[in-house]
Parts: sequence; structure tokens; C-alpha cells
Amino acid sequence: MSEAAVKKRVVGIDISLEETIFAVVDVRGNILAKDSIPTLDYPEINAYVAALSERVIALVEANGGYETVRSVGISCPSANFLTGCMVNAANMPWKGVIPLSAMLRDRLGLAVAVANNAMVVAMGEQAFGSAHGMRDFIVVTLGSGMGSCVFSDGNVNLGYDGYAGEIGHTCVNLHGRQCGCGKVGCLETYTAARGIITTARELLEETDKPSLMRQEEKLTPKKIAQFCDQGDELAIETFRRTGEALGLGLANYASLVDPEAIIFTGGIANAGKWLLEPAKKSFDEHVFHNIQGKVKFLKSELNDGERDVLGASVLAWKVKEYSLFK
Amino acid sequence: MSEAAVKKRVVGIDISLEETIFAVVDVRGNILAKDSIPTLDYPEINAYVAALSERVIALVEANGGYETVRSVGISCPSANFLTGCMVNAANMPWKGVIPLSAMLRDRLGLAVAVANNAMVVAMGEQAFGSAHGMRDFIVVTLGSGMGSCVFSDGNVNLGYDGYAGEIGHTCVNLHGRQCGCGKVGCLETYTAARGIITTARELLEETDKPSLMRQEEKLTPKKIAQFCDQGDELAIETFRRTGEALGLGLANYASLVDPEAIIFTGGIANAGKWLLEPAKKSFDEHVFHNIQGKVKFLKSELNDGERDVLGASVLAWKVKEYSLFK
Repeated sequence: MSEAAVKKRVVGIDISLEETIFAVVDVRGNILAKDSIPTLDYPEINAYVAALSERVIALVEANGGYETVRSVGISCPSANFLTGCMVNAANMPWKGVIPLSAMLRDRLGLAVAVANNAMVVAMGEQAFGSAHGMRDFIVVTLGSGMGSCVFSDGNVNLGYDGYAGEIGHTCVNLHGRQCGCGKVGCLETYTAARGIITTARELLEETDKPSLMRQEEKLTPKKIAQFCDQGDELAIETFRRTGEALGLGLANYASLVDPEAIIFTGGIANAGKWLLEPAKKSFDEHVFHNIQGKVKFLKSELNDGERDVLGASVLAWKVKEYSLFK
Repeated sequence: MSEAAVKKRVVGIDISLEETIFAVVDVRGNILAKDSIPTLDYPEINAYVAALSERVIALVEANGGYETVRSVGISCPSANFLTGCMVNAANMPWKGVIPLSAMLRDRLGLAVAVANNAMVVAMGEQAFGSAHGMRDFIVVTLGSGMGSCVFSDGNVNLGYDGYAGEIGHTCVNLHGRQCGCGKVGCLETYTAARGIITTARELLEETDKPSLMRQEEKLTPKKIAQFCDQGDELAIETFRRTGEALGLGLANYASLVDPEAIIFTGGIANAGKWLLEPAKKSFDEHVFHNIQGKVKFLKSELNDGERDVLGASVLAWKVKEYSLFK
């Protein structure tokens, strides 16, 4: 293959607390090869970047070669796309401002873009998933935290500083729960994992009704959703209340940005109708009347195991090609 | 002047309930000539468009001639930029969907764009006012209603249907005031003219404290602001409470779109520090921590009497040139 040939592959990397997954992906979103390293094995950032680079190069060399790869996209917590840095990531072992994009570019000799998970997932959904063909939509990630990304007229809305989309920290109740961020009534104190468990516990205390949740030692949103499937009334009410808060927060969002659809991803989105039906009801009660009934609520069409590296691969295509060795 | 010459003027039109103002404006925002007609004199839309067109042509002919004018921009209530229509404008005499852009284009023989007041004002502020040089900002209009427009990366965010920016109908209090739109707790029930007067009346009932507001038969936000200047405690408290609600609504907005600045226009913005200082305090309490203290609160730099036609002239430059007679 000549050096001037068009490079038809990129590397997508998904960094989470548990593991770092990386994959070689082609233009059609086929994952050609995939590998991972345990993120927490590297408490020091230089050792982490060195190990990750080495393993990425090994994967690339074993699957078509370095010269077929155009660029690299990374999904990581607290990423700032505009600066290429990871900024004060709350749960990661590396503190402060980490110039992740520059560090990996220097080791891999390829252009590297970083973005937060919501933005990366939104790019993946637009390229290959539920948002394909859409120009105005919101992607919401629901897990241990809550994130979002909004596309306006086909492009990601980054905001002035790259911090747009913080729906989890919009206020839905002035006299509500205390959030870890220091404020009161943040949406994610109701809709992220810990918030849902708090709602369940509050419900169990409010009433003497029997519930499968009472026997459960370690409640999780996943278990609560399973109890819903078994017809457990209080489990269903837990997600109904969660959906009520979610619908309000999303209604305010939609009144401001007028999306064609809202797409839900993340572990908690798997609760499906138990969460999304009450959320849609609450949404239509609170949203601006001219768009009432129009905004689609959709689930991600991408596989849980592939969504993040696939989105990171789409991000990779957005950066200008650059190679130390071309 | 040859027909192929570059046309260096546009017409800006501002339609409000009281009057319709139109002006010939050059590329630097100089208003070269201005005139108006009383909007309510024409309860039938065809008669209105005929009269307006006739007077616009007369103004243009008397000031450089038709061949110097490139296009027309209109600010009007409930406008949809994407369709060029005025849609169910609540207070206007013409009901339903009015294809205003097409109707005026056919009579004037020029390209015509319509947009709502917040969008037109935002375009004016970006071209000639407080937002000059900014790519990410929000313009908020405060008057008998509340509107907004957000720019993302240099462009207006219209949303999927053209209804983006409805900040007045975001919910700030689930158990709050009833809004004319049918929902409860909408921001504009606290921050638009009627809401501010309601807050003042509530305050006067809560307490026996003396206040200049007690003697006033017809309270208006303007009068309340004047009482603030005279040191009236309850008048100051009225705007403090208004600012508290405003700051919360804007904090949620800013957490979602991360603007460089928020620019205030409209009659109520003239209350100045009495409104904006408590609003900024509340804003910084509620906004996402990474942008706390960073977002500028600015007042419009354009004159009250010119802002709307000037903004409409900027809108005019955005449409493709078109002329029946070229």
C-alpha cells in the first residue's frame, strides 16, 4: 500500500474506571479488532499512556498495519474536546488537567481527539444508530451520573468552554436533594443510579406494602427494573417517580433547544418502558406547547458493548489527518 | 447605477402590536430612513401587507431607489424562520398561519426573511452590539413576555421545528404560578411584566411595611424600578425575588448550552442592577460548577428605538439575494 493511499481505518478508545477498551474500526462502523487493559492498574498517567499506546500499536500492527490508520478518537470522563484534556475527572486515579490528546498523539504519531462519553455516543448514534439522518437531537446517558449532548443543525453544541450539555446539574426542585456538586435539586440526584436507589428507599419507608425490594440487600437500578418485570408495585412506582423528574428536566431542555428526538443510552435506559413511559408523560405535561407530542423518545440502536468504541471511532474521523511517520 | 451592481442596503421591519416600523439600513448599521404604520389599523392581513408594501416602496424610492436594496428582514411575534410564517400570534389581529415572508416577497419583489424578536435582536447584538465577536451567547428579551435566542458556534440555534429558545416556558417551580400557556411554574409567570406586578402585590399583602407601590393605582415594572431608585424597600424586594427566579432559569439554560455571555434586552431589562444583581447571584448559586463565575451578564448596547429594525436588517443580509426585477 502506498503511503499516499487513503486511510480507511481509525482507532476508537473508551476509557472508563473499570477498563480501557480500544478497537480498530472501518468507515462503515465494523469493529475489525478489539482489546482492553485494566484502567486502574496504572495509577500514574505516564505509565498508563505508555501501556495503552503500546497495546494500541500492537493491535493495529496485527490488523492491517499502522499505515492503514488515519486517526484516533477517545471517550473519557470529564473530557474537554476543545482543549483535548481530561479535567478533574472525579473518579479517575489521575488528578488535575491531563493533556490526554497531546500525550497520545506524541506516542502514536497520529491525530487524537478526546470527548466526553455523551458527545462520543451522540456521534455514534448519528453515524450508525437511532439519530441517523437527524440534525437536531439530544442524547442522554443515564448511569452512575447523567450526561447529555445536543446536536444543533447537524453539529455538536460544545458551548463556549466545551462544557455544554450538563443536564444532570440542572435544577428540578429548589427544595430537593443535596447533590455531590454542592447544589440542591440537581436532576441527577433523582435520575442517576444513586438517586433511583434513594427514591426506592424513601418509598419503602413511606409504606408497609410488600415489595421484592425489601428482601434485596444491595439494591441496584437493574434489580429494581427486574422487580418491575415481575410486577412489583413499589419498584414500578420507583421508576414512575424517576420518570417524572426526568420528564421535567428534559421538557425544560427541549423547550430551549427544540430537538427532533431524545435518545437514551446507559445502563439505566435499559429499564425501558418502566422509566420512559412515565418520563414521556411528564415531558409532554411540561414542554412548550408548540412542540408537545412531537419529540420522539428513542432508545439507542447500538449494542451496549460496542457503542462507546464505535462513537469514539466516529469522533476520530472528525479530526484532521496527521501522522508523524507519513 | 448598473443593474449588476452590489446592493448595499436592506430593509428592516419590526412588527409589534402598537406599530410597524421599517427602515432602510446600510451594511454598517446606519439607519438611513425610517417610517411606520399603525399595525392595528389593518385587521385584515391582505390589507396590512398591501399598505406596508406600498409604504416600504415609497420609503425606498425616496432614499436611494429600489435598485439599491438587496433584501428584507422582519421581526414579528410567533415567527418561524424556517417556514417564513407567523404562527398563531397570540395578541395580533391575524389568526392562524400567515405566510408573511411569501406575501411580502410577492409584493416587494425582494427576498424576505422573518424571525421572532429574540432571534432578530440576537443577530443585531452580534453584528453591532454587546455580542460582537462572540460565537456562543444567549440573548434574553424581557417585556410583556419572555423570549430568548441562543447562538452556538456562531450560528442561531433554531431547533428542529424552529421553536428553540422558549425559556419563558421552562418550569422553575413545580408548584408555582399558573401560566397562560396552560402549564404551571413557567419562568415568565415571574419575570415578564404581569409576573413582576403579581410579585409586588403578593409582597404588599405579606407585610404592612410602607411602600410607594401602595399609592400607585396602575403598577408597572417601570414604575417599580423608579421606586427602587428612590430606595423603596418593597420595590427592591420585588426585583430581588424576580431576579432569583430569573437566575435559576438562566442557570439551567447555561448549564445546558454553556454561553460566553447572557445579554438582556426589552423594557424590563431597563430595571438594571435592581434585577440583574440578584439574578447574577442566583445564577451563580445554581449553575454548573465548571462555568460558575464565568458567564458575563450584559445589557444591550443598542438604542431601544433602533434595536429591532437594526436586527431585522442584519437578518435581511442572511437571505439569498432575489429580485423579481433585476
